[in-house]
Amino acid sequence: MSLNKITSRDVDFAKWYTDVCLAANLISYGNTKGSMIMCPNGYAIWEEIQKQLDAMFKKTGHENVQMPLFIPESLLNVEKEHVKGFAPEVAWVCYGGSEKLEERLCVRPTSEVLFCDYYKNVIHSYRDLPKLYNQWCTIVRWEKTTRPFLRSREILWQEGHTMHETSKEAMDETLRMIHVYEDFQKNVLALPVIVGLKTEKEKFAGAIKTYTVEAMMYDGVALQNGTSHYFGQNFAKAFGINFLDRDNKLCVPYQTSWGASTRMIGALIMTHGDDHGLVLPPKIAPVKVIIIPIGKEEEVSLAVNKVASGLNVTYKIDDSLKSPGYKFAEAEVLGIPIRIEIGKKDLDLGVVTLVRRDTLEKTKTSINVVSDKVQELLVDIQNNLYNRALERRNKMLYEAKSYDEFKSIAGSLPGFIKVNWCGDSMCEEKIKEDTGLKSRCILEEEESDGACVVCQKSGKYKVYFGKQY
Amino acid sequence: MSLNKITSRDVDFAKWYTDVCLAANLISYGNTKGSMIMCPNGYAIWEEIQKQLDAMFKKTGHENVQMPLFIPESLLNVEKEHVKGFAPEVAWVCYGGSEKLEERLCVRPTSEVLFCDYYKNVIHSYRDLPKLYNQWCTIVRWEKTTRPFLRSREILWQEGHTMHETSKEAMDETLRMIHVYEDFQKNVLALPVIVGLKTEKEKFAGAIKTYTVEAMMYDGVALQNGTSHYFGQNFAKAFGINFLDRDNKLCVPYQTSWGASTRMIGALIMTHGDDHGLVLPPKIAPVKVIIIPIGKEEEVSLAVNKVASGLNVTYKIDDSLKSPGYKFAEAEVLGIPIRIEIGKKDLDLGVVTLVRRDTLEKTKTSINVVSDKVQELLVDIQNNLYNRALERRNKMLYEAKSYDEFKSIAGSLPGFIKVNWCGDSMCEEKIKEDTGLKSRCILEEEESDGACVVCQKSGKYKVYFGKQY
Repeated sequence: MSLNKITSRDVDFAKWYTDVCLAANLISYGNTKGSMIMCPNGYAIWEEIQKQLDAMFKKTGHENVQMPLFIPESLLNVEKEHVKGFAPEVAWVCYGGSEKLEERLCVRPTSEVLFCDYYKNVIHSYRDLPKLYNQWCTIVRWEKTTRPFLRSREILWQEGHTMHETSKEAMDETLRMIHVYEDFQKNVLALPVIVGLKTEKEKFAGAIKTYTVEAMMYDGVALQNGTSHYFGQNFAKAFGINFLDRDNKLCVPYQTSWGASTRMIGALIMTHGDDHGLVLPPKIAPVKVIIIPIGKEEEVSLAVNKVASGLNVTYKIDDSLKSPGYKFAEAEVLGIPIRIEIGKKDLDLGVVTLVRRDTLEKTKTSINVVSDKVQELLVDIQNNLYNRALERRNKMLYEAKSYDEFKSIAGSLPGFIKVNWCGDSMCEEKIKEDTGLKSRCILEEEESDGACVVCQKSGKYKVYFGKQY
Repeated sequence: MSLNKITSRDVDFAKWYTDVCLAANLISYGNTKGSMIMCPNGYAIWEEIQKQLDAMFKKTGHENVQMPLFIPESLLNVEKEHVKGFAPEVAWVCYGGSEKLEERLCVRPTSEVLFCDYYKNVIHSYRDLPKLYNQWCTIVRWEKTTRPFLRSREILWQEGHTMHETSKEAMDETLRMIHVYEDFQKNVLALPVIVGLKTEKEKFAGAIKTYTVEAMMYDGVALQNGTSHYFGQNFAKAFGINFLDRDNKLCVPYQTSWGASTRMIGALIMTHGDDHGLVLPPKIAPVKVIIIPIGKEEEVSLAVNKVASGLNVTYKIDDSLKSPGYKFAEAEVLGIPIRIEIGKKDLDLGVVTLVRRDTLEKTKTSINVVSDKVQELLVDIQNNLYNRALERRNKMLYEAKSYDEFKSIAGSLPGFIKVNWCGDSMCEEKIKEDTGLKSRCILEEEESDGACVVCQKSGKYKVYFGKQY
């Protein structure tokens, strides 16, 4: 038995990434291009994400529903900007059994039109508002290039779709949900994300405003890790959704949608992982502690049971026939936050060995206080992972005052570059053509303090640019 | 405001069923034929089912994974019996964006072939066995006639797929899982199900043995409510799955699969529901208690808060502007097990009114012991629902000794008829042609005690026949 070798992340980051995905048994490649099998270790992380994020959705008043998998072609066509954005990348069902369908059905690439079609039938009065629905489901987008978790043809995600009486309420919801993503990703996934507004060019097809949560990976490349959209009345008008307001006046409601996917698992891997494999923040790790007995003495197995029964976090005992060295390496590949080694030599001194996954640092602890020490360490690992990622990311944040400076940084240093920007798509497009960098997001809390980095006209926004996955 | 009227179940059972589905806001019809929207009330029941059944799967050693949504045509074709059974009822994806696919993909109608394709790559040694995987997902079957929860083109379900070293282990697993379904349905859903073996004619396409959990609805019609299949080596051989056993000999593993779906919600409705709407067994009800204040006195709202904070089960307070009468009717339609009415008149006497949904019986209880009384009532309602359904079902179980007797019962009485059967499909087919009844299941614990009810040759099995949804 041997563990799959993992390429060093500083030698070949892309290869390192897929090596970790496979060595930690998170995924396996499916039979069709761009399809991915989520193996137990990968799916267990998704279950943890679902559980915790779903609780946050429910706490903010949302209910879960399930819309159909298929969208008839005519329904997808109702909102013009939306169909332009999605039609090129959907999978079309043309036959049911041996019968050719009268109208083609696409597998949902996102469900705005399905929710609108439903809301049209159930929203009649202000009393029916707000509608605060979410669904956990599979979507399909016919991507050309694919990569596990980051870009695949089939995606597991959640999508919230809400309807409101007023523009303000819908705007509040849009912001509330982007901050739920921010909170979850910072405090649970230990990802130091940047929240901002997408430019006109990068916003969601059919939206008025798109907010985004942008994470930066170990290699300085951005991962858009969740978005929240304000639609105003765009879809509602196209679908003829109306309600009688408090003054008995016929009005059109305001809409939002927001989604995040298994891509968050990709972000976890590429932010915290190292050359030994995955590193999971304790708050999202399905197993927090692995206990590995060294030797077969009865004393050891008694101590293993004693330590295990004292823990009040999820643990596993690896009492398989593999060698201790193999088990250590396996626990490291899997990213389990703490490994407890229990052997006779330590026990003679009344201690056991704790190894934290983030630093691989070993400490000996009295067997009587293991549980307290584990609690302490878990908190410390969670904080350390966030701070380590924050520090690394901050070192890759740049600011460019001139276009020459911008191009020089873009050409030599990975990361995000902050600039003043006039708001014109032409300038954004020029940056992309010249450097390959796309706008990440507009920083709404910061004001432009100089001329547009490209055209030198008056700057309107502070914007981050960066390469993206 | 008025609640949708519900047809009496004794007048038109089919209409009653859809009336309840819509009035309780469990579902809404989707835009395409046979598609269903699961509204919050319906989806919340599914979430409860998932949570509890998933815990039972994990307790029996299973892990969750996620296989792709699409099956390439060539992969579906590998196992001959299987493709014969499923090809006529799958949805075919022919285009990705504007590009015609070289090979059609079907949306999975079940995932045996996807799991086998995966297992082929990961099973090499007896050390890799057993594989005990499950997935919660959506499947598609292109049904001609559809009905909410019972038969739809898109189905939410779970499917377990396992691989084992020996035939005995696989057979044990097949039985273990049908008994997990039995346990869950009897003890949580309060459904008095019958467990048995499907006949050759009715078994799953590609299986050697199919066990089933058969429930009987209020109208005496059967609902197949979960199945567990033993495949032997059928699929494994077709897919070339091999492993080195403990003696270093190349062997073919043994396989099972088992699944249950949102159809269980249909069974809940059609077993426990009444003319007032849904009736949910306490153990599966997302909300166990609804508290309805009568009047706006401060005393009332103080009492509402006092009672609510004392409860240790999930509750809701309906303090909306609707009239108490409307709220009572709504709580009944939704099937909430207990309703607590709190009004000044009762409070003056130190009591509140509890109404149990199963019998609509009212009792007054001292406000100081509400929580204990609620616990007691919930247990009692759960037991009563099971016993009531059991008694009703038992009254619709018949035994026929001659074919004339069989036809007479089949023609006049709803329910299941037990017979001796020779095991020949011709006799089974004749029963179906003559009476419309299909075999439900072979009762493995009972022995035939006479001649086959059709051909009069020696009986081999005791079998139930009945109409089915």
